Amino acid sequence: MTVSSLVQLRLVWCCWTLPRWQMNGHKRSLAVWTSATAKWTLKQKKLAELYRIPVSRPPILSGTSLLGKGALSTTSISPKEVMLTSERYGVQRLPFSHVSDSDLAFFEHLIPGRVITDPDELRLFNVDWLQSVRGCSTMLLRPRTAAEVSEILRYCNKRNLAVNPQGGNTGLVGGSVPVFDEIILSTALMNQVISFNSVSGILVCQAGCILENLNTYLEELDFIMPLDLGAKGSCHIGGNVATNAGGLRLLRYGSLRGTVLGLEVVLADGSILNCLASLRKDNTGYDLKQLFIGSEGTLGVITAVSILCPRKPKSVNLAFLGCQSFSQVLGTFTTCKGMLGEILSAYEFMDDKCMKLVESHLKLSKPVTGSPFYILIETSGSNSAHDEEKLNNFLEHVMASGLVTDGTVATEDKKIKILWSLRERITEALTHDGCVYKYDISLPVERLYDLVIDTRARLGKTAKNVVGYGHLGDGNLHLNITAESYSHSLLNAIEPFVYKWTAQYNGSISAEHGLGFKKKHYIQYSKPQEAVLLMQQVKAMLDPKGILNPYKTLPASS
Amino acid sequence: MTVSSLVQLRLVWCCWTLPRWQMNGHKRSLAVWTSATAKWTLKQKKLAELYRIPVSRPPILSGTSLLGKGALSTTSISPKEVMLTSERYGVQRLPFSHVSDSDLAFFEHLIPGRVITDPDELRLFNVDWLQSVRGCSTMLLRPRTAAEVSEILRYCNKRNLAVNPQGGNTGLVGGSVPVFDEIILSTALMNQVISFNSVSGILVCQAGCILENLNTYLEELDFIMPLDLGAKGSCHIGGNVATNAGGLRLLRYGSLRGTVLGLEVVLADGSILNCLASLRKDNTGYDLKQLFIGSEGTLGVITAVSILCPRKPKSVNLAFLGCQSFSQVLGTFTTCKGMLGEILSAYEFMDDKCMKLVESHLKLSKPVTGSPFYILIETSGSNSAHDEEKLNNFLEHVMASGLVTDGTVATEDKKIKILWSLRERITEALTHDGCVYKYDISLPVERLYDLVIDTRARLGKTAKNVVGYGHLGDGNLHLNITAESYSHSLLNAIEPFVYKWTAQYNGSISAEHGLGFKKKHYIQYSKPQEAVLLMQQVKAMLDPKGILNPYKTLPASS
Repeated sequence: MTVSSLVQLRLVWCCWTLPRWQMNGHKRSLAVWTSATAKWTLKQKKLAELYRIPVSRPPILSGTSLLGKGALSTTSISPKEVMLTSERYGVQRLPFSHVSDSDLAFFEHLIPGRVITDPDELRLFNVDWLQSVRGCSTMLLRPRTAAEVSEILRYCNKRNLAVNPQGGNTGLVGGSVPVFDEIILSTALMNQVISFNSVSGILVCQAGCILENLNTYLEELDFIMPLDLGAKGSCHIGGNVATNAGGLRLLRYGSLRGTVLGLEVVLADGSILNCLASLRKDNTGYDLKQLFIGSEGTLGVITAVSILCPRKPKSVNLAFLGCQSFSQVLGTFTTCKGMLGEILSAYEFMDDKCMKLVESHLKLSKPVTGSPFYILIETSGSNSAHDEEKLNNFLEHVMASGLVTDGTVATEDKKIKILWSLRERITEALTHDGCVYKYDISLPVERLYDLVIDTRARLGKTAKNVVGYGHLGDGNLHLNITAESYSHSLLNAIEPFVYKWTAQYNGSISAEHGLGFKKKHYIQYSKPQEAVLLMQQVKAMLDPKGILNPYKTLPASS
Repeated sequence: MTVSSLVQLRLVWCCWTLPRWQMNGHKRSLAVWTSATAKWTLKQKKLAELYRIPVSRPPILSGTSLLGKGALSTTSISPKEVMLTSERYGVQRLPFSHVSDSDLAFFEHLIPGRVITDPDELRLFNVDWLQSVRGCSTMLLRPRTAAEVSEILRYCNKRNLAVNPQGGNTGLVGGSVPVFDEIILSTALMNQVISFNSVSGILVCQAGCILENLNTYLEELDFIMPLDLGAKGSCHIGGNVATNAGGLRLLRYGSLRGTVLGLEVVLADGSILNCLASLRKDNTGYDLKQLFIGSEGTLGVITAVSILCPRKPKSVNLAFLGCQSFSQVLGTFTTCKGMLGEILSAYEFMDDKCMKLVESHLKLSKPVTGSPFYILIETSGSNSAHDEEKLNNFLEHVMASGLVTDGTVATEDKKIKILWSLRERITEALTHDGCVYKYDISLPVERLYDLVIDTRARLGKTAKNVVGYGHLGDGNLHLNITAESYSHSLLNAIEPFVYKWTAQYNGSISAEHGLGFKKKHYIQYSKPQEAVLLMQQVKAMLDPKGILNPYKTLPASS
């Protein structure tokens, strides 16, 4: 078999209308690798237009975001028009105190100029990015230090004032905005890097640092952050840790439970828990920081993070492939785990319906057409020649075996970003399609797409679109359903059907988004009663008055 | 520069008396790569003799161990002669009940034939492997299922009987044996693999499976365990998780906090907490399993584990190198992180004194001599040609730059095992040298060896040997001090000096061994008072009577 040269692999971006992989002499090459499908006209578009687009509204107050205001206009309704969470979901306010004039005076004295009470300014912080839940907080506080957070929480705990910790407000389960009038405690001004050790690769920074800014900072030092997600331009590292964010690099660098080495946390009573170790290994007592990773701000407010960062890869390649069935998507995954081994850094899949939404709503074109499923495979490594040879061998193999029917490869940074935007902007495309019902499911990979098929069949024409995509390498499906507008009856047709289906295969009803406000009542589909009871005990121990992010994560104790 | 061929790299083991790396044309090659230091005569020894030797006594009762009884004879005293912990350390027994005849009858009825009360049989389970602590338990229970463990704990909790959970009893801080007469709860018969999914690589097994047996099982399926340590032939996976074991592969595959996906745990009151998910991602509520990872059996008894296993590497290489200074060891580390990148799987260092002990007590010879420091660098990857080229480039570079002055490389499995035994058997060699004072320290890597130098200077001739080795890639130093016999005055000269020294650089006084019985009073050198108080609250919540592994991990609440 003649191998397509690495030069030819690179050429796909220069000679877009030519055959992409020159598989000369291969018996299937004519059928598969013709130029007939090479219709992408990326070069005619402005690159900036195709770059990753923010998935969050502009964090106006932070002053550090790389984002513009454009993202907010993705839907036509204004935050004001979003129905109040308490009304839509019929929630009862818990007996917390109301913010008084003397409370305002206390906070103004503590952090002068950083207490926001203007209703117009507050509007954006009361509504989630999906515009699906809305609180009515009358106060937002912007501390700069853990000491200030400590004073704030000590006071709130004493006064029985509820608090909603908020990072970049990019959460998808209603966990990052108030349900009623909780005081919003923003981490936006806690945005300083504290230290970075280039021998160990350990970064220590405040919780309000924006993920993308950290990555940019590290790249200059030849390192990267161990996590990457679509919301990187807005989300805060503290929020990432508080929600145990997964994202695109988990397959390679593992979960935050392994890479987060230390945390500084302020507890509900205002005490500061300093577990901000910069050590790869530390077995002195219980690992308390784990309690706060993924607890969605209900157990404490994370104010600083110590995290292990990998070296910046010297070589990155991205393949965009088409498959004729989901079983071919799975077969390609198993093959690439074996053949790409240690350089595999992402394995994402998207169904054709996702791609159609990205094309119609965002005017992005995919480089390969005619397949019901598409895959993005990223490799990253320390030697470009080795990586490209491995990738080439793999691509030849999956093509020869019929697992993959079409594809293209990008090796240049700009082209890689364009290809990634096809995957990363699906969330945004969905919001343009109407009201979105989002499900973030872990399942055994072999069952992953069955849930999409079954949901589609169940909903029929009551849904506008039912699409599936996600981190296949982690067994993580993003199932999304769109409709023209919010409807209780459609919601009732989806839930608890999706949760029951997931529980049947011992899956998780929230792989990476958390439970927040929207999913907390469904925890029993993934956790036994004993576990929920123990979680409630932990909550009661750390926050006896329940002031931290109330109405979130756990159902009320019975 | 002419590169030594891969064939030549392999030849080092066939032509042991020939120059090892043929660095023809290199200006330093004559001085560095002569055959003068090639004195190893491994081929004259029986391979079996050189293979890894068990670091644990024979688990006579388990029936599944690969080990013989030889290991116990590494020291000349018998378990009976080890001083009782309570006497050596002056500990007061807590007011637990004593085991009565009716208790015996209950357990005999519950698990007939699996209740051990014979003093001779019990002896080995009352003493740690180091023969440094000894309890006086009169009963050992050997349940087979979580349901049996549940019944046992429910009964013990009601009767106020203290329990010492025990795996392979390979712990080094006195955590795995009773302090007084706690009932020993052995996981040895819970040794079944429950499931393995070859697509996801997720293994689910009972807690008593021996680590090496699991690895052997997985290797046949083309996978490996994500952890590896010297005690692998005896230690149980449940014990590994309960102590958050680190070991040799942590550098590559990360800590158990990331790779353990689920646990089944029996709590002190007998309730079974089933968090045995087989999912890579699950953000439904607090991650309770993390509480039990590294809690040393004080919060619950782990009965089953779900763990993510990597593919078996297709290619493994091991380089044994000599360095003239510790700064060269560090320089070599930084260089290899950059040049070996994703294939680097271990970076271990040993000082010359360690190697001398291995040579004199175990009659092992090292392949390279004349250096004050030695390094073991392991690579593992999916393409042997690529890996060897990367390794070769790296070796050339570190030799050319003078970072490394001598070395050899093994690519065959047998030779790799022989080289590894030089590192893995240091612990064993130390026990032959006399009474060992063991310290397991995390420090910023640049400070790592200073502690050895300062301790050596402080102790002078009062110590027989002061040696340093460990997982440099993880910032983890094993500092060991030997003396002819145990002495309070020597201990007082070492402690708290070592802990204070460590705290000064924000290190950890236990990187991977845990606190167990021996280190619990020093926790404050690595954790603030607020953290210790919170740990005590967690303990009180989960085990209000304190029956689980008492006298361990945490100092008593004040």
